[in-house]
Formats: sequence, C-alpha cells, structure tokens
Amino acid sequence: MALIVQKFGGTSVGTVERIEQVADKVKKFREAGDDLVVVLSAMSGETNRLIDLAKKISDQPVPRELDVIVSTGEQVTIALLAMALIKRGIPAVSYTGNQVRILTDSAHNKARILQIDDQKIRGDLKAGRVVVVAGFQGVDEHGNITTLGRGGSDTTGVALAAALKADECQIYTDVDGVYTTDPRVVAQAQRLDKITFEEMLEMASLGSKVLQIRAVEFAGKYNVPLRVLHSFQEGPGTLITIDEEESMEQPIISGIAFNRDEAKLTIRGVPDTPGVAFKILGPISAANIEVDMIVQNVSHDNTTDFTFTVHRNDYDKAHKVLDKTAVELNAREVVGDTNIAKVSIVGVGMRSHAGVASRMFEALAKESINIQMISTSEIKVSVVIEEKYLELAVRALHTAFELDAPARQGE
Amino acid sequence: MALIVQKFGGTSVGTVERIEQVADKVKKFREAGDDLVVVLSAMSGETNRLIDLAKKISDQPVPRELDVIVSTGEQVTIALLAMALIKRGIPAVSYTGNQVRILTDSAHNKARILQIDDQKIRGDLKAGRVVVVAGFQGVDEHGNITTLGRGGSDTTGVALAAALKADECQIYTDVDGVYTTDPRVVAQAQRLDKITFEEMLEMASLGSKVLQIRAVEFAGKYNVPLRVLHSFQEGPGTLITIDEEESMEQPIISGIAFNRDEAKLTIRGVPDTPGVAFKILGPISAANIEVDMIVQNVSHDNTTDFTFTVHRNDYDKAHKVLDKTAVELNAREVVGDTNIAKVSIVGVGMRSHAGVASRMFEALAKESINIQMISTSEIKVSVVIEEKYLELAVRALHTAFELDAPARQGE
Repeated sequence: MALIVQKFGGTSVGTVERIEQVADKVKKFREAGDDLVVVLSAMSGETNRLIDLAKKISDQPVPRELDVIVSTGEQVTIALLAMALIKRGIPAVSYTGNQVRILTDSAHNKARILQIDDQKIRGDLKAGRVVVVAGFQGVDEHGNITTLGRGGSDTTGVALAAALKADECQIYTDVDGVYTTDPRVVAQAQRLDKITFEEMLEMASLGSKVLQIRAVEFAGKYNVPLRVLHSFQEGPGTLITIDEEESMEQPIISGIAFNRDEAKLTIRGVPDTPGVAFKILGPISAANIEVDMIVQNVSHDNTTDFTFTVHRNDYDKAHKVLDKTAVELNAREVVGDTNIAKVSIVGVGMRSHAGVASRMFEALAKESINIQMISTSEIKVSVVIEEKYLELAVRALHTAFELDAPARQGE
Repeated sequence: MALIVQKFGGTSVGTVERIEQVADKVKKFREAGDDLVVVLSAMSGETNRLIDLAKKISDQPVPRELDVIVSTGEQVTIALLAMALIKRGIPAVSYTGNQVRILTDSAHNKARILQIDDQKIRGDLKAGRVVVVAGFQGVDEHGNITTLGRGGSDTTGVALAAALKADECQIYTDVDGVYTTDPRVVAQAQRLDKITFEEMLEMASLGSKVLQIRAVEFAGKYNVPLRVLHSFQEGPGTLITIDEEESMEQPIISGIAFNRDEAKLTIRGVPDTPGVAFKILGPISAANIEVDMIVQNVSHDNTTDFTFTVHRNDYDKAHKVLDKTAVELNAREVVGDTNIAKVSIVGVGMRSHAGVASRMFEALAKESINIQMISTSEIKVSVVIEEKYLELAVRALHTAFELDAPARQGE
C-alpha cells in the first residue's frame, strides 16, 4: 500500500464533468489500496477571471487582498472533488492551505512554503479518507492567506509529498509524459520513461511547460519521485528521479528544448572596465525584468559588446532602460531583435561525452542555420537562432542525436 | 467618534462599480471620524452560482464541502472592497470568518455564532484601519468552514456590533427603511422612523424582507441599535431599538405585513384524542417542512379539524405526508389550498388597546373579505384570506389603522 500525492491542474478540473472523471480516477487508485492526497488547481480560467475582477478595482491590486480573492479558485474545486468522491462512496475531506496548514512566508502572490503540518492529513489517511488539498495557497504566521504564484499547485503537490514522505508525487497534465522534444515540431519525438531532476529543470526552464520549475527543484531537493502523467489517458508517464544510472543505453542527450518567448538586446562599444556588467544589468533587474542568457565576448580596442535575452513582453521596457544606460556609459549603440528563438540540447550524459556541442553546431551548419549566441551549462548547450529556423533546427538536432522514434510500418 | 458596523448586501456589492460606490460611502463615514467595521455579502447571484455548481456534482451536496465552496463568495467581495478603500487612501484590511475569528457550532449550512474574537479587529481599528469582514461565514472549533445559512450576513453584522459594543449596526439595503406596509401595494405607505425589535420580528417573519429574522432577534437580545438604510440614497432610514416609549403619538399598529408564499392544508375528522397534534405534525416536521400557522378548533362528535400552513414550495410534499397520516388516523379527508394569502397587523401598542382585532375584522368585513383562519400573538393578529383579496385587504387595513400618509397636494 503506497502513499501517493496526485496533483491535477486547471484543465483537469475545468468543468464539473472533468471533476467527475478525476473522481473516477482517484476512486480506482483508492480501491487498489493506495493512500491518497489529491492536490487541485482552480478551474482553468477561474484564476484569470478573479485577477481581472481585482484589476477592475485597481491596476496594481493590493497583494494581500489579491491573495484573498485568488485563493477562492482552488477552494471551490477541492470541495467539488470531495463531494464527487463522497458520492462514489469514497470518504473524503477537503482542506484549504490554511486548514492543512501550509505555512508560508508573507511574500503575497509569490510566497514560499516554510512548513507543512502533516498531522491532520495523517489522521484522515489513517481513518481511510482521501484528503483533497487546495494547491497554490498557504497561510503566513499571522493568519494571512498567501498564494505561491502561478503554477504553484505543482509545488504544493511536491511539498506535501515531501512532508508526508510519499512514495510518489504524480502530476497529471494534458500530456502523457515528457518528450525528447515537442511532438508538434518533431513527429518522431519519443516519450521518455525516465529523466533526471537536473535534465527536467533544464527542459522546464527552456519552455517544455510540463512542470513548474520550482516544483522540480523542490522534488530534487527532497528527493521526491515525481511522475508526469496524462489526466484522462492510461499510461506510465515519465518518472523524474535523482537516479542517474549511466547504463549502456543511456542516451547522451535526453531532449531538445526550445523557446520562442525571448528577445535579444545588445549594447555595443561599452568601455571594458570592471563593473560594467553590473552597470548594464543592475538597472534591468531594478526594473523587475528577468534576464535569461547573458553573453559577453572578449573585448577589442578596450570596448566590448554585451548581449542578453529577456522575455518578449519585457523587450520594450528593457530597451528603454538600456538606452538610458548606453548614454551614461557612452556606449556606441543599442540594438535589439525580437525575431529570435532559443534551442537547447539537454542531457546529463554530455558531462562524460566530449564533442556534444560540436556535434550540435555541425548539425545546424548542415542546415545553414546561423548561430547568434551560445551559452552552455554542465548538462545543456543553448543557441539563439533566427526564429524562422526553429522547427528545422529542432528536427535536425533530434535526428543528429538519435532521438527519433523508429519509423512504424507504413511510415 | 462612534464605532459603527455597516453591512452591505449582495445587491450593494453586485458589481465592481457598486463596490466602488460602497467604498465612497465608507470613506465619507471614515473621514467624519467614525471607526468602521464593514460586513459584506457575496455579489448578488454568486452564492446561487456556487450552489448550482455543487448541485451539478450532487443533488444533496455534502454540507461541510458546500460551505467550503459557498464561503468563497464573500471572500471575493471583502478583498475587492479593501482594495477599493486602499485605492482611496483609506487603510483597510479584509478578514474571512476564520480570520476574525467568528466561532460557530458545526451545523454546516445553518451554523450559529458562538463567539467572536474582537482582538484583531480592535487592533486594526486602533491603527486607523477600516476592517472589512466576510458576512455569512465562520469556523467551527475544528477549523472547518461554516456558513450561517441564507441572509446570515445580517446576523454577522449584528453579532460583530454586539461583540464590539458598537454604537450602531447599519444594514444597507435596497429600501430606505421599514414601511408601514409594502409601498407597491399601498401608495400611502410611510417610512417608520423607529420600530421596536419585537415589531420588526413580526414584520420580518411575515414577509417584509428587509432584515433577516435571526439578525433582529440577535440585535434585540444584545440590545444593538439597528438601522435600516438605503445603500445608495441619503436618508435617516429606520431605527430598530428596544425603546418602546408609549408616547401619546405612538400608533397602535406599526405596520401591515403580508405573505403570499403560503399554502393551507386541513385534515378533517380526526379523532380528538391527546397527542393527535403531534401525530399530524410530527411526520411533517420529520420531512423537514416548516409549519407557520396552526389552528385547531373545538371538536364536535369527538372529531376535530386541524389546519396549518406551509411554504407553497413544500405544499405537495406536505400533502403526501398528510395523506398517509390521514389513513393512519382514520381521518375523513385532507383538503388543501394554495390560493391563500396571510395578512397581519403588527404593533406593540395593541397590548394595551382592546378591540384591535375586532377593528381589523370590521375593516375586512366592510370589503366583504372572508377570513379563513385567524391566529394571534401579543403584538400581532394574522388572518388567512383568499389570495385575490390581498391588496384590497392591505389597503383597507392601512386606512383603518390610520397609517396612510397625509395626501400631498394634487393627490
């Protein structure tokens, strides 16, 4: 008899009919003898509806009060699921973040979980109840309602699994697992049976939006086995674990991630003096703009070019900030490009294999795709290319690293 | 500087625009120097939407879980109003029933308030904040969310006023006070400046749906001055107090209440033996049907007729129950009528004035209106008549008891 935490997202509980389907699924697990804690998001669209309501009052809603409003979304779904389970003869009880209690810091709208009281839940499990917990929310030490920020329900699931020392945390989504790359781009993409936390982190942060990054970090930190599964289809999904067995069959690359959401900004001809990077990125970060890739090349004539990428939504804002900095630093010019895409190969295998990067560059060269920026980490190589080559690049890399599924008969 | 509890109902907070208007009103009071606690209902229609959602899962939603869902309605409005106040430069904070904390018993969907912790609120008031509290909800000793049942927001307002020893509890509604009768039926109906708790109770329970009965009971018990006001019009409203000064001008009758929601059931020819009333009404109450008027007349030939009224919605159900009872008791027959209306005259003055009832009967006789049932209490006389005579009866009584407003010029 295993203890399993199951998390269902907004699409999986988007209608009453879907909630009934989730109840059927939970019932099946329960009848198989597992102890179950189910974490739910709000109905898809509901969180946005609530935020819009708040924004009608104020463009910048008071964070404490926004959390009071937004947290109602999950409060509705947990009670609906508990009802649906009880209707099926499965004893169940719902808990809000405050009722559990999931203690967080007081950073409203983006709180972090500090501690989870597992007493109530353990009591209910012992009594044979399925416990349905509101994801995405908690309570601070003063009793204020907090939310973990977007996608925080995954984090709630993992944190609960860690606190309860669950055997597995299952994240139900609208895909049946983690793929070597997006199947909409590469038809031969394959579902991975297993992936490491580190690889998943790189895949997630690069735009494979299957899981929230924070949830994966959390799962890695507490070694919670995480499984990505489809909400309404059968299948083993993809298991994300710490186990990085370097077996013979272990591929060098686990997957190809990509991202079209970024834009590139370059400040040219800045004096190459100590502290210049901070002078450039300080104001960007002060303007609350997140920077992804940063590349600075060797200088020539004592000046250097400095390039970074930001989310496309932040491009105009970042450009304005950078224009000001350019004047202050007496830089030659600022150029930008929103017409880019980032492609990355990810795999723990590359640590022990030389030549992975060059094999990547070779594959892109063969297709005459120009590389604008390169950035590497221990288990990843990312390049920025012109956006129109994105699909071509992903397909070429998928083939070059032997990730293509064997062609089926008739294909 | 007074401490005032203000309660706004669902219509008053039905849209974001209305919430902004409420914020303007609250701001005005605050700037006049009053300490304010504001109690809100859910946006009009929202509670029904949530109940409908729950009913899609189950016709008989689990009461505990239904409360988890339904309580989200007020949680949204309190945070919206707090935001709207802060936007206006008025420090404010919202609290759910759990956050206050409003301790109730565990009777989900119809909980009763046991105790209110006033510490947090007092601290906020001292710090100059307007405190916005979710009406209609509380929490039981185990931390389960409870609701007080429909209209419970009035009760929350009064209970808070009692706990805080507030100078006044103002109930904002869509009428500008309590009237001698429904102005839609009698054009000469007048707003009352004052009415006693007892009179208000009779008026409320008879269908003048200005205030919740429980709230009035509560206010009377703890002697909380209660004022009914219009949400968006200026005016003194009607003050409901314990003060029943019998001045010269005190009218004998304060108002005429009426109710079209009832139906009448008679079981004829039941053996007039001890316990027969219980044998008849026991099964009705066991079927969760509320009975209003009950009339049993003297018996003849050792059998008696027993008549009572129920809500029209319960008529069919009650009829079936009574049919069964009739067989068991060997009664002659069961007859029913949904075509009735109840009209009552209400006033503490009638205690000390003889002949009030006969004056009522005389007024009805003059209009040839037949009286089907009569029931009296210390401050009320109620009659059941054929429904089609309702307006005529109310107008006749309004005139007979000298409640008509003086005719204005040109009228």
